[in-house]
Amino acid sequence: MNLFLLFDEDFRPDGSVTLTGRRALHAHEHLAVSPGDKVRVGHYGGLRGTGEVLTVARGEVRLRVQLTEPPPPRPGVDLILAMPRPKALKKVLSQVASLGVDRLVLVNAARVEKAYFSSRVLQPAVSRRLICEGLEQAQDTRPPQIFVFERLRPFVEDEMEGLVGSWARRLLAHPHATSPLQDLVIRRPSPRVTFAVGPEGGWVPFEIALLERHGFEAFSLGPRILRVETVIPYLLGQRAVLTV
Amino acid sequence: MNLFLLFDEDFRPDGSVTLTGRRALHAHEHLAVSPGDKVRVGHYGGLRGTGEVLTVARGEVRLRVQLTEPPPPRPGVDLILAMPRPKALKKVLSQVASLGVDRLVLVNAARVEKAYFSSRVLQPAVSRRLICEGLEQAQDTRPPQIFVFERLRPFVEDEMEGLVGSWARRLLAHPHATSPLQDLVIRRPSPRVTFAVGPEGGWVPFEIALLERHGFEAFSLGPRILRVETVIPYLLGQRAVLTV
Repeated sequence: MNLFLLFDEDFRPDGSVTLTGRRALHAHEHLAVSPGDKVRVGHYGGLRGTGEVLTVARGEVRLRVQLTEPPPPRPGVDLILAMPRPKALKKVLSQVASLGVDRLVLVNAARVEKAYFSSRVLQPAVSRRLICEGLEQAQDTRPPQIFVFERLRPFVEDEMEGLVGSWARRLLAHPHATSPLQDLVIRRPSPRVTFAVGPEGGWVPFEIALLERHGFEAFSLGPRILRVETVIPYLLGQRAVLTV
Repeated sequence: MNLFLLFDEDFRPDGSVTLTGRRALHAHEHLAVSPGDKVRVGHYGGLRGTGEVLTVARGEVRLRVQLTEPPPPRPGVDLILAMPRPKALKKVLSQVASLGVDRLVLVNAARVEKAYFSSRVLQPAVSRRLICEGLEQAQDTRPPQIFVFERLRPFVEDEMEGLVGSWARRLLAHPHATSPLQDLVIRRPSPRVTFAVGPEGGWVPFEIALLERHGFEAFSLGPRILRVETVIPYLLGQRAVLTV
């Protein structure tokens, strides 16, 4: 926990803030804070700053906070991802929060198991905790928006435009593509990119054709088949240094 | 398991191969193979190819194999990594195998807990299993070499040169550096890069100075503090598309 996330309900009428639950435990047991200590804080969805410890009790730590600093810059990436196994999804939710992805759209694909859509990881309380852990890790305050579509084609045809915008560059990671991402570099970097990443077995030809009809250019991440939780940072790393 | 790894002891005098243990279970229960089916195989450290199923029994699957294809190309990266927490180390071992890192050197640092060096993850049987899982995932056969040094300075001063070579480019990921990796691009790409990645709290100034004295150039991965299992693919993704 590299930053304590603060929520609206933590703010008291006198302007001080009360940390409870997991955060109080971390402050109390792991950091062993005492009055006067400073900790790093951020208002969920808003500014970051410093919290000065006022009082420490079991399960409750009070802070006086100063919030003046914007959250870190974002890479301008939306991610359309074939729904991963629940175990991988847990990692992915924290990871996309840490990496500053703006929108994560979880979609069905021919090689996705239907049961993945009823995973408890998708319950709001569970996914929110995982996202908060990712934000705390990266010292960010702005959560990614998460969307779930159980049918790929209606999403691509009817919903995608409204969600990720028509002006973002659309790129499709595909094992059989011939160009690596650096061959798709353009003179002026796109302020926004939408990446589509398939399931471990890959998109099927119908899905590729559907995405290509909707403006996606295919590129290859190389000959190695990587786990989704490895592919996502690998891809974000490439985006960070290329003007695609 | 995208490829069955074969070991010398699996080869029988008649040239056929016997899968046992975890691999037989996967072939039998997950893939439900029958005689005549083809599966992807690779000889640990060597060539890849195809295995034709000859017989299937509980706990033992016999194959006739043809090994003709080299393993996938490698990115030419060695990694010097401050010893991570055991839970993260498990992920890192599979990941470096999947990503084709040649050498992983696990070192001490001021912000590493001494106890991490007695983790059971470092026991050869455990680390080998994790590495094999990473290789099977990426359809690679060549394992990374793993080294452990409990003292950073003697490693850097006396051992590093012999391990990672004097001609590899040396790059140091450091949160307080000002240049991102793309500013260190050179006209001709280095065939080999050695990356040094610190613990989550970062290297301390003494460690930075030591590494810089030994030819490491510092670069920044941006303002987000990422988990080690996110940093490694992020970094390898950048290396894959930049001529550093």
